[in-house]
Amino acid sequence: MDRIPRATIERFTVYLQCLRTAERDTTTVSSEQISGKCGVNPALVRKDLAYLGSKGVRGVGYDIAGLAGEIEKVLNLQHEWRVVILGAGRLGSALANYPGFVGRGFSVAAVFDNDPAIVGTRTDGHVVQPVDRLQEAVAEHGAAIGVIAVPAANAQDAADALVGAGIKSILNFAPVLVDVPAGVEVRRVDLATELQVLAYYQPT
Amino acid sequence: MDRIPRATIERFTVYLQCLRTAERDTTTVSSEQISGKCGVNPALVRKDLAYLGSKGVRGVGYDIAGLAGEIEKVLNLQHEWRVVILGAGRLGSALANYPGFVGRGFSVAAVFDNDPAIVGTRTDGHVVQPVDRLQEAVAEHGAAIGVIAVPAANAQDAADALVGAGIKSILNFAPVLVDVPAGVEVRRVDLATELQVLAYYQPT
Repeated sequence: MDRIPRATIERFTVYLQCLRTAERDTTTVSSEQISGKCGVNPALVRKDLAYLGSKGVRGVGYDIAGLAGEIEKVLNLQHEWRVVILGAGRLGSALANYPGFVGRGFSVAAVFDNDPAIVGTRTDGHVVQPVDRLQEAVAEHGAAIGVIAVPAANAQDAADALVGAGIKSILNFAPVLVDVPAGVEVRRVDLATELQVLAYYQPT
Repeated sequence: MDRIPRATIERFTVYLQCLRTAERDTTTVSSEQISGKCGVNPALVRKDLAYLGSKGVRGVGYDIAGLAGEIEKVLNLQHEWRVVILGAGRLGSALANYPGFVGRGFSVAAVFDNDPAIVGTRTDGHVVQPVDRLQEAVAEHGAAIGVIAVPAANAQDAADALVGAGIKSILNFAPVLVDVPAGVEVRRVDLATELQVLAYYQPT
């Protein structure tokens, strides 16, 4: 398979969600309908879907379940990923109990904090564990993804701890960049950045 | 000024943060240094910065404060934006008190919920208000950006309420798409999508 551009991968995640929603009502969908449901222009939808093996049938469109399955295969979502969260403050707790992960390929395996006042407390289904248990817990749960939900000042330590525990994929919610060795992928979610992009598009 | 591509706008927010960090240590920076600090390739940095009036000086680079100021001007960040948050559960509370907004051009004006058990309670600096006070509060605070932090089932109602209150820019954290009229910009932060992109890049 050709190497798939990152922007296409990001849109695949959007298509997948639209398809899983559409699937409740119907079994086939055209690229124009995917375009309308997902808010992506039709030419781009067709270009993206060309990276998959699946071909639409003229006048009928794509089989929704088949197309969704192919996207899941490409995205490595055919098994569930176990996620560990560093930081059990408001954001970490919100993430630990985020209902939007259910059915999307992820489950939270464990939550960690280095504050003795929080360790041992319960945030819904999870008892907060000390960070020095991270490596053991990652191995025990087969966790592959780590989430940084600690204050900016602690973000690098959190990244180092995740890397030390063998995690190769990190989602960073702290409002700073972290350094990681080659071979570790960090994706940053910066809430202020999201707002800044909105500010640019604010009608004036 | 030429219309600036969305991807450039997104990178401007990253450059801005790198520049504000670099500014603590030095006064000038080369495009190669910006590239290294921000993790964006040097050719792309130069192409993006060409949208600004600022020119680097050969052998010296860019004046950091000047360049950051120009980016802020383009992004409309020269005044502070007031933000309202719908939903005072874990995620809404985390956002209401997110320390990463400070100094980035945003402040939370008010937090709303439709659960009588939560309305009137305090989440740090904010007393949670009933959603029927939204329109009045938006006008009173001059709020321009709304954040949806409610469960998926309530997201469309929240979007309708924000639009009804005159909000034109919405950041949606609920794991569903919402419909809004033309002229309203919605930016979606889907935490499962972020994880799905990471899963794709997971070393196998």
